[in-house]
This record gives sequence, structure tokens and C-alpha cells, in this order.
Amino acid sequence: MPKRLAFIGTGIMGAPMAGHLLAGGHSLVVHSRTRAKAQDLLSRGAVWADRPADAARQAEVVFICVTDTPDVEAVVLGEHGVLSSARPGTIIVDHSTISPSATRRMAEAAAKRRAAFLDAPVSGGDVGARNATLSIMVGGDARAFEQVKPLLALMGKTITHCGPSGAGQLTKLVNQILVSITNLAVCEALTFAEKNGLDAKRTIEALSAGAAHSWQLANLGPKMAVRDYRPGFMIDLQQKDLRLVMQAAQESKVSLPAASLVHQLFTSAQAAGHGRDGTQALFDVVQRLAASA
Amino acid sequence: MPKRLAFIGTGIMGAPMAGHLLAGGHSLVVHSRTRAKAQDLLSRGAVWADRPADAARQAEVVFICVTDTPDVEAVVLGEHGVLSSARPGTIIVDHSTISPSATRRMAEAAAKRRAAFLDAPVSGGDVGARNATLSIMVGGDARAFEQVKPLLALMGKTITHCGPSGAGQLTKLVNQILVSITNLAVCEALTFAEKNGLDAKRTIEALSAGAAHSWQLANLGPKMAVRDYRPGFMIDLQQKDLRLVMQAAQESKVSLPAASLVHQLFTSAQAAGHGRDGTQALFDVVQRLAASA
Repeated sequence: MPKRLAFIGTGIMGAPMAGHLLAGGHSLVVHSRTRAKAQDLLSRGAVWADRPADAARQAEVVFICVTDTPDVEAVVLGEHGVLSSARPGTIIVDHSTISPSATRRMAEAAAKRRAAFLDAPVSGGDVGARNATLSIMVGGDARAFEQVKPLLALMGKTITHCGPSGAGQLTKLVNQILVSITNLAVCEALTFAEKNGLDAKRTIEALSAGAAHSWQLANLGPKMAVRDYRPGFMIDLQQKDLRLVMQAAQESKVSLPAASLVHQLFTSAQAAGHGRDGTQALFDVVQRLAASA
Repeated sequence: MPKRLAFIGTGIMGAPMAGHLLAGGHSLVVHSRTRAKAQDLLSRGAVWADRPADAARQAEVVFICVTDTPDVEAVVLGEHGVLSSARPGTIIVDHSTISPSATRRMAEAAAKRRAAFLDAPVSGGDVGARNATLSIMVGGDARAFEQVKPLLALMGKTITHCGPSGAGQLTKLVNQILVSITNLAVCEALTFAEKNGLDAKRTIEALSAGAAHSWQLANLGPKMAVRDYRPGFMIDLQQKDLRLVMQAAQESKVSLPAASLVHQLFTSAQAAGHGRDGTQALFDVVQRLAASA
């Protein structure tokens, strides 16, 4: 198993994930845009690097967990990026959720340096990151995947090799299509229920045993019923992922009417000031569409 | 517990439901539009009645399981309908899925005859009807509900009193909003997956552990993957229920953009000849929206 690791991006997801690697007994060099966010890791034995290139120079595996496509491109392809210093054989593992086509371009750039680039977006949120129960969806070279799998197992519970480069990102986007449309289903269902005088909690209980069951009905439904909009998963981040969905759909000439609709309604939620609320605050938008009481 | 029962409408749902009442040791008079569909019940001891009024005349509880609002209105309010002969104290239990507002009007008409009218639509399909595992969502008078609850327990597993007259129908419509939009979520997700080269089955497995889980992903997804469109629940019937959803939404001034969208796409499925296929054949419509291979 590789022993010399680097981790770039120690935010709300990256910090606990890097912590599991450290706890697994590996040497770890870290870099982040804001050094303060790496402080806990540094106090536990991680070594600071000023630039991605410096973090990658000695590493066998470089993990990345930042926000969006341009962030990953800067970290990987930038002047002082990972590929400027990575030695042949280095494996780059990108845990960010970004564009599948940009992912494939970076994998090609890495291959020219005889490095491997795996896309490995996660689901399960900050709770999953802290408890090492993430689902990790991996695309890219199968041999590189086998080499890093024991490391991924320190951070996640369900580790799936989804296919070639980009397949991890695509699978994550499939996940986002499902969770966001099902969220809208629950918003419409509970709005219809409440406006027609049904008790939301009793309705959820009556329906949860059957075909209406979903993660969203069980977990987001009760929060909607009491207008608890604390995140969870923030609408601003859900929107970033839905933008990636719509871009990838456009590139592959796939029409997604319901995903497009929910993307638009989330824009309305952002306009109403819910950007940093949990995705269940979509309920507020659907409520506003209905007659006021 | 009431002992003298009548059952009107012995189709694919009604026949096995009436069979459970008969097996429970109750005397049963049956009526159906097509006598042949009652033949099995008659051979097991049920008594035939030529008209709803004849079925209801001696019954303490009259069960109804027909298709649509006008069918129930004819059975209940028609010249030879249940209310023309029902004695005071009779309890009418309507298992059909019909309009909540029409339900309330029939409950009022029944009350004038000192009879009770409970709406009690079911979910769980013909399998649930045969295995007595239906969910039964009941609206109407609480005392009448308590009286018939032991009889409902012969036919279903989850028996919920949802509120006053119409609340059972409204809860069933909430169920249909959830199942139909979640179905569309799975159609879009798997279309996006396939058109981008992902393996549908592997994708379903990778995502089923997390927040993307739904009854539709687990049960309809694998059928979509192999284009198995056999019903299950037929699109023609799903459309009837979505029409009731949109009518009730209009009456209560609730805007349901995703439910409206899925209603339109199911219309396209009907136009393509999928009316008598299972609801998972919506996948074919979403596939047609995407570029042909």
C-alpha cells in the first residue's frame, strides 16, 4: 500500500477525510487555500506545503477535495499545480464533484506525465466524511483503482469502480438527478397534503410503508413539516451539481425535463435567500407557488 | 363485528379483497358489471345481486371497488344505487380511487339517509390485494371507521384513519404524486447514465445504499434497464389518478409543476402505445427525448 500521501483541500469534507488517512498511519503533506483549515491536521503530524506542486513532489498518491471544475484544474494543471512536479507513477485521486468531460481532459494530461488521474466523487455529506461512511464512486484506470482502494476504504464504506475516466463523476451526477427530483416530489406531495388539510406527519407515516417510500420522504419530509431548513446539504452546492448535470446532459444530448425544472425552482429558492439552507428549503418555493392561506 | 356484507365491483382488485372477507366467515352478497368476474366468489358461497340496490338491501357494510368517480356515483347515487335501498346505520366503504370532492358530496348524501360513507382507497396493487397486504387510507366518520376496521384488517396490513371525509382519497393522491415523480426521476437518471456509457445495473447498485434510494430505483430501475415494460401498475390507471391529482390541486389552488410534467409525459407514453404497459414504460418516452444512438 502507498505510504507517502498528499491531500489538497482541507475543508468541511477534506479535513475529516485526510484525518482518516493520517489515523491510518500514513505520512501526509497537506495544502489548502486557507492554512487555518489544515491546523488540526498539522497538529496531528501532517506537514504543510505552500503550493500543490510542493505537496505532490514526494507523494505516491495525491488526493484532491475542492469545490468546482476550475478549482481542480488550477490545482492539477496550474503553473504550480500537481502535474508540474508529480513523478511518473503518481496517482491523483479527485474527490471533488466536477465536470466529467473536464475530468477526462485532466486524465489525458496526467497520462502524458505517466501519472494516473482517478475521479472519485463522494456522497454521504460531512457526516459521512467524519464517520468514514462515504460512498465513493470511482472512474479511471482499473489498476490504479486497485492500488488506492485500501486508502479509499479508510474514508468510505461503499467503494465502486464505475468505469473509465469520468464514470465516477457521471455516477455522482446520476445520484444528484435522483435526489433532487425526489426532493421536489416530496415538496409537491406535502404542499398538496397541507393545503388540503391533511396532517403532514400522519401522511408521511401512512405512505412510508409502500411504493411512495424514499430517503427524501423519510428524512427531508419531517423537516419540511416543521419548516426546519438547517443544512444538511446546502442549496448552493446542490445547484452547482445540477449545473454540472445540465452541462453534461447538453454535451451528451440528453433531455432532462424534471431535472431542469428542479434546477429552476432551486434558483427561485436562492433568490428567496435559501442558498445556504438545506435542500429541503425547496419546500418554501413550492409553498409559495400555492395560494396563500 | 358486522357479519352481513356486500361487495360491489369484483375486478382484479375487488375479487381477491372480497375473497378475504368471505374467508373471514362473513356472509357476502356481490354485484359486478360483468357477472363472470364474480364466478369464483359465487362458487365459494357468495350470493349474486343483479343491482347495487339489491346487494345493499340486507347488508350492514357495503364495499365498493370500481374504477372512476362516475362509476362510484352510479353505484351509490343511481336509480338502483346503494343509497336507494340502504337502511339507516349502513356503512359504505369505497375502495376506489376517485375525486375527494365528489367523495365529500356522496358522504353528505349518505348522511341524509343516516348511512356512513367512508373513502378507503388502497395501495399495493393486485399482489397486495391477493396477499392481503394492502395499505388502506381511510377518510370519514371515526366511529364508522372503528366498526369496519376489523374487516379492513382482513384485506390490508397498514390501515390508517387519515381524517374526515375525503382524507383517504387525498392521502392516496399524495401517494400518487410521490410515486409518479420519483418514477420520472429514475427514468431521467438511467437515461442520462446509459447515454453516457454507464452500466445501468452497476449504477443502481452503487447508488442504492445512499440518499438516491427509492422504491422506484430498486423495483422499476432494473426493469427499465432490460426494457421489461410488463405491468405492474398500468399507465392508463396512473393517468386516471394523476387527472384526479390535477383536479384536486386546481380545486385547492395548489401548483404542482413536476406532477403536471409527469402527467404530460405519461400522455406521450399513451400516444406511443404504452397505456396498458407498466408505469416503468415512461422510460421509453424519456429515452425518445434523448438523441438516438
